[in-house]
Amino acid sequence: MKPNEGRSRVIIEEVSPEVDGGRYAAKRVLGDTVAVTAAIFGDGHDHLGARLLYRREDEKTWRYAPFAELGNDLWKAEFTADTLGQWRFTIQAWVDHFDTWIHDLHKRIAAQGTADAAHATNLNEPLPGTSTPTSGTSTSSTASAALSTAAADVALAFRSGAILLDKASSRATGEDAKTLKSAAGRLRVIAERAPENGVRYDFPLDDATVALAMRYPDLSFMTTYSREVPLWVDRKRAEFSSWYEFFPRSLGKNGAHGTLREVAAYLPQVAAMGFDVVYMPPIHPIGHAFRKGKNNSTVAEPGDVGSPWAIGSADGGHKAILRELGNFADFDYLVQTAQGLGIDIALDIAFQCSPDHPWVKQHPDWFSIRPDGSIQYAENPPKKYQDIYPINFESSDWQALWQELYSVFAFWVDKGVRVFRVDNPHTKALPFWEWCIAEVHKTHPEVIFLAEAFTRPHVMYSLAKGGYTQSYTYFSWRNTKAELTEYLEEITQPPVSDFFRPNLWPNTPDILPKPLQVPNPALYSQRIILAATLGASYGVYGPAFELMEHEPAKPGAEEYLNSEKYQIRQWNLDDPAVKAKSLAPIYTVLNTLRREHPALQTNSTLRFHPISNDNLLCYSKRLGDDIVLCIVNLDPDAVQTGFTTLDVLALGVDSGAPYTVEDVLTGSTYMWQGARNYVSLDPAKQPAHLFILRRQTQAKQQDSEAGVPTAR
Amino acid sequence: MKPNEGRSRVIIEEVSPEVDGGRYAAKRVLGDTVAVTAAIFGDGHDHLGARLLYRREDEKTWRYAPFAELGNDLWKAEFTADTLGQWRFTIQAWVDHFDTWIHDLHKRIAAQGTADAAHATNLNEPLPGTSTPTSGTSTSSTASAALSTAAADVALAFRSGAILLDKASSRATGEDAKTLKSAAGRLRVIAERAPENGVRYDFPLDDATVALAMRYPDLSFMTTYSREVPLWVDRKRAEFSSWYEFFPRSLGKNGAHGTLREVAAYLPQVAAMGFDVVYMPPIHPIGHAFRKGKNNSTVAEPGDVGSPWAIGSADGGHKAILRELGNFADFDYLVQTAQGLGIDIALDIAFQCSPDHPWVKQHPDWFSIRPDGSIQYAENPPKKYQDIYPINFESSDWQALWQELYSVFAFWVDKGVRVFRVDNPHTKALPFWEWCIAEVHKTHPEVIFLAEAFTRPHVMYSLAKGGYTQSYTYFSWRNTKAELTEYLEEITQPPVSDFFRPNLWPNTPDILPKPLQVPNPALYSQRIILAATLGASYGVYGPAFELMEHEPAKPGAEEYLNSEKYQIRQWNLDDPAVKAKSLAPIYTVLNTLRREHPALQTNSTLRFHPISNDNLLCYSKRLGDDIVLCIVNLDPDAVQTGFTTLDVLALGVDSGAPYTVEDVLTGSTYMWQGARNYVSLDPAKQPAHLFILRRQTQAKQQDSEAGVPTAR
Repeated sequence: MKPNEGRSRVIIEEVSPEVDGGRYAAKRVLGDTVAVTAAIFGDGHDHLGARLLYRREDEKTWRYAPFAELGNDLWKAEFTADTLGQWRFTIQAWVDHFDTWIHDLHKRIAAQGTADAAHATNLNEPLPGTSTPTSGTSTSSTASAALSTAAADVALAFRSGAILLDKASSRATGEDAKTLKSAAGRLRVIAERAPENGVRYDFPLDDATVALAMRYPDLSFMTTYSREVPLWVDRKRAEFSSWYEFFPRSLGKNGAHGTLREVAAYLPQVAAMGFDVVYMPPIHPIGHAFRKGKNNSTVAEPGDVGSPWAIGSADGGHKAILRELGNFADFDYLVQTAQGLGIDIALDIAFQCSPDHPWVKQHPDWFSIRPDGSIQYAENPPKKYQDIYPINFESSDWQALWQELYSVFAFWVDKGVRVFRVDNPHTKALPFWEWCIAEVHKTHPEVIFLAEAFTRPHVMYSLAKGGYTQSYTYFSWRNTKAELTEYLEEITQPPVSDFFRPNLWPNTPDILPKPLQVPNPALYSQRIILAATLGASYGVYGPAFELMEHEPAKPGAEEYLNSEKYQIRQWNLDDPAVKAKSLAPIYTVLNTLRREHPALQTNSTLRFHPISNDNLLCYSKRLGDDIVLCIVNLDPDAVQTGFTTLDVLALGVDSGAPYTVEDVLTGSTYMWQGARNYVSLDPAKQPAHLFILRRQTQAKQQDSEAGVPTAR
Repeated sequence: MKPNEGRSRVIIEEVSPEVDGGRYAAKRVLGDTVAVTAAIFGDGHDHLGARLLYRREDEKTWRYAPFAELGNDLWKAEFTADTLGQWRFTIQAWVDHFDTWIHDLHKRIAAQGTADAAHATNLNEPLPGTSTPTSGTSTSSTASAALSTAAADVALAFRSGAILLDKASSRATGEDAKTLKSAAGRLRVIAERAPENGVRYDFPLDDATVALAMRYPDLSFMTTYSREVPLWVDRKRAEFSSWYEFFPRSLGKNGAHGTLREVAAYLPQVAAMGFDVVYMPPIHPIGHAFRKGKNNSTVAEPGDVGSPWAIGSADGGHKAILRELGNFADFDYLVQTAQGLGIDIALDIAFQCSPDHPWVKQHPDWFSIRPDGSIQYAENPPKKYQDIYPINFESSDWQALWQELYSVFAFWVDKGVRVFRVDNPHTKALPFWEWCIAEVHKTHPEVIFLAEAFTRPHVMYSLAKGGYTQSYTYFSWRNTKAELTEYLEEITQPPVSDFFRPNLWPNTPDILPKPLQVPNPALYSQRIILAATLGASYGVYGPAFELMEHEPAKPGAEEYLNSEKYQIRQWNLDDPAVKAKSLAPIYTVLNTLRREHPALQTNSTLRFHPISNDNLLCYSKRLGDDIVLCIVNLDPDAVQTGFTTLDVLALGVDSGAPYTVEDVLTGSTYMWQGARNYVSLDPAKQPAHLFILRRQTQAKQQDSEAGVPTAR
């Protein structure tokens, strides 16, 4: 079947950013320069024009940005994401006959110039040694004859141009229309003057006229891209965030249960360390049925506080606060205190219930019922988790269920919460998350969702596509140079980086990686440095990390012994003796570095550089003139040395000129030059070089040529 | 907005083959085993089921094929493309609760078995050193208590299974329904028998019952993929073809213009050389206005025959035959002769007109009109091609134009033509081709279109996506090991190979590559060997190639001197002296090899193997047990030696066992072993090894494990 308009000759393909053909939104943050690229081409050699159409989804009309050709049929346009929320963009492209005419006219004008060109013009490149009646004539007369022919071609071309200018005029209005009309007239006048022998025409239009005509292209046969591509714009913290996790229950004094007020009192110290997101395990009432005892024992002793993830009791469920922590007034105070410190309070939402949760009685049909009428508890045969009832997302009452789960987020958003860490989202229906997150974002696009899904890549990526702002990663188990390089390149480059934002954690209450089961400060420092400099977002389960809590629950396990998940641990962080051995000071160094250097606030420019030692990892992040170069010794026990092979182009460094690197860990500065530089790191003294690279001024001029990305 | 069915928990992504998200059809050939892969996953750990739905587009109902999981959420299904034309496929996937239940039940049954497991089952893996009231009891009594618990769990699981079997029964009919119903009953009976202490249940269902239940999955919440993906199935010659090109005008005797009858008489020789497509330049009347003389001179001398691409005269246009060649009776005879020899006659369709073409008078509005009322001839300022009028695809009469152009193909298809070589398709509107080719294929899916587009990659690929069966390539200019490897890997692997089928030509009437401007038999042999073994489809501009016609039109040019494009060349191919120096015999060797070895009839298994010399190129193609290994000396002047590093797994060779390689060029056989083997090629003696690799029988068994592709 024929298309409606067969004269639309331009094809638009390979549009980026576009996730799964526009099925999902690509992600950017407020203020980003969004670069849209596409392959735009047509038949033949006509010149093309193209424009980007973009708008916030709630805007009625499109805004426009011009496309420029990068070569090989690839084009690029940019716009600034100046508001939060859902955006759409599409592309229009057309054959630009006026631009083609300008291009050809320049060649015709030049063709008048030389006998050679004229010769070619006249004789259509005859071949040496061929003899024809005309090519027997003398070169000079041939040339002059040729010139007049070439000039006549130019005159005719002027008349073609006049027609194009008339059309442009008819698309313009007011002064523009007049100007173009008269330009057309002038062209015709010039064309009328038949040139005498030897006369050469000059290019007849001034740049202003050409530019004006280009502003009124003929869009009659324009091609519009088939999709309005979705793009989601988050606040900057969605990309750049520093998370600190701890258990409020452990902040009490003299064995008492900690409270939200004590959390609020602790916040200034967290802020001083430079963190901007404080994440607490679930703060809801904890069930009593099958409550877990210390170290995950199936039988709780009197006074055991149970697991915060066994949610719900007679006191309420996901919209209630654990009595021991305080009340809503305390929570409001906490949120206000946090806001005053520029900190986001992150709540942990775990959609599962203790047998005592109100939903169990009110909505038994939201759970799976066993043949004996009992509700199915969580299990992975033969293991049982009888203190937990999973929700059944195939419930016939799923619509009410979805609404209630959504209302949990709405409830806490109403209480001032803007960041949620979601527990095991991969065990809840994926379509639910896509709907729920969009629902929250409708009224609160500033809300951030972190997916705690440690599962298969497709599922983790699917959660991110479905709307999760950030995701936990495999970083916790990536230790070697090869592992770190391959994995970080995968998750920080398109297509993955268009929808998936990694949040790197060296440890969590559920994960005490094997290497951290040895209390080696060099190793701990190395891991937190990697997390904070490889990832624009990172987090740490604080007290256990800075105090190098390292005993596993049992040999071979990755859980902590005497975990706060099942009992109160008072770390006495204010005790000078404790402070003395705490690694906390490095947080401050790293977070200060991250705040002062925009290069570390994005992953888009992360680049690994070769270095001649598999125990050394060398990488850089650069944003314009802000360049951070990190070299980490992955061996916590021995001195490692090597020579770098820096990608100086990527660093914008003039391969000839010297440059300085200043180590923020030691304050020492080195003068380096070119790609090859010597490095020696003694883990006993310092686990890494965190260099600020300062180029010579000449080198800076290279930026444009180097074409180093300064934004996605 | 909520989905209609929120309980559809399965996601289907990364479907392959799928060209531009299903915008265009992937290409396969008749008899192919079409492998469809996709990422299929859901939340949690439930087992999934999936099926492929496929049909010819004109079929009312879907056919089904099961998906099998490859691991990491990737699944694969296959079907055989058993008829030509347009196909569609899509995917359905669901959570399979019965399969999940079977899986869990096996674990529950095992859990009864050991005190350990029972211990875990009962005590939910308590930790060493923890003391609770119950774990104080003796191991034995703990174990027995545990066993009864584990057994009770199994009994309850049986009752769950009975419910699932009842549901499966309700979805089945007749005997199946009865069988499943009674199986459910039996499960309940077993479950009723409360086990005494120490009793262990065995797995209660036989394989037949399990298999039967699996045949009736619960599809209530099934996910169906969003698209019905198009797939085009061509005849085998679309993928595997050997083209021979020559100018009929030169087949005459004693200076006379050649005829279609003489072409017919020449066909047996072409067939004997093993070619199956004979391609002739346009056979239509040639214009007189501005007719080109010999060597592209702008002035023709009396008797000059002109360019076959300057189409149209008073005798007619694209539906007429040049008087000198003969009439339609001659053409019918030619086509029948060809069919008798298993040869396709390929016509050259060039949509452009000489000023004398009937269309010019009948439809001046199909061309561009200049301000002086004249029709715009082809030009690339300052060059002019006044013997050619390009068609204006922005004509307001475009619909009639498209129809007329289509009718040219329809006309010749009606005359028995099934292969068209299209001249410069990239200078005609791309949407036209997508429509026109589909229109021809509606009634004649067996028609093959070869795109003669030597232009930018996006445009060449777009023509292929739009329906072109085969495409000319850059092979003519790819000479070094690096160039050949990179380019061939690009065009023979997905995604490109899903829509783009390369046809490799060492030369054409328009292309005499620089290297071939030296008449070196070794080099000519090397180029034709590369074309015929790297490409399942290849072609050659015959006479000029086998006689090593090598003079360029002028220094630096890639055109032939005294080209047949502008004059008659009588090659006297039957003259013994000419025969003696002809390279034609190698065609026969290569085409015989190609016919006898299915491995060479597809590009999907092309694999390059490392060899320790940049002047040697080593590659293989394998289909099941048919293995061809080629080693070409890219240096036509010197002996080159090196050691191979063969990918023995890809070759299905047991790395330990020896295997034989037989050179079809020399007949000599070698005993090789493993990856590393010595090669020495003297271009003066032979330009390449074309080995048939024969594995030991043990090695053959490896196939399945090796997982070597035997089809796409």
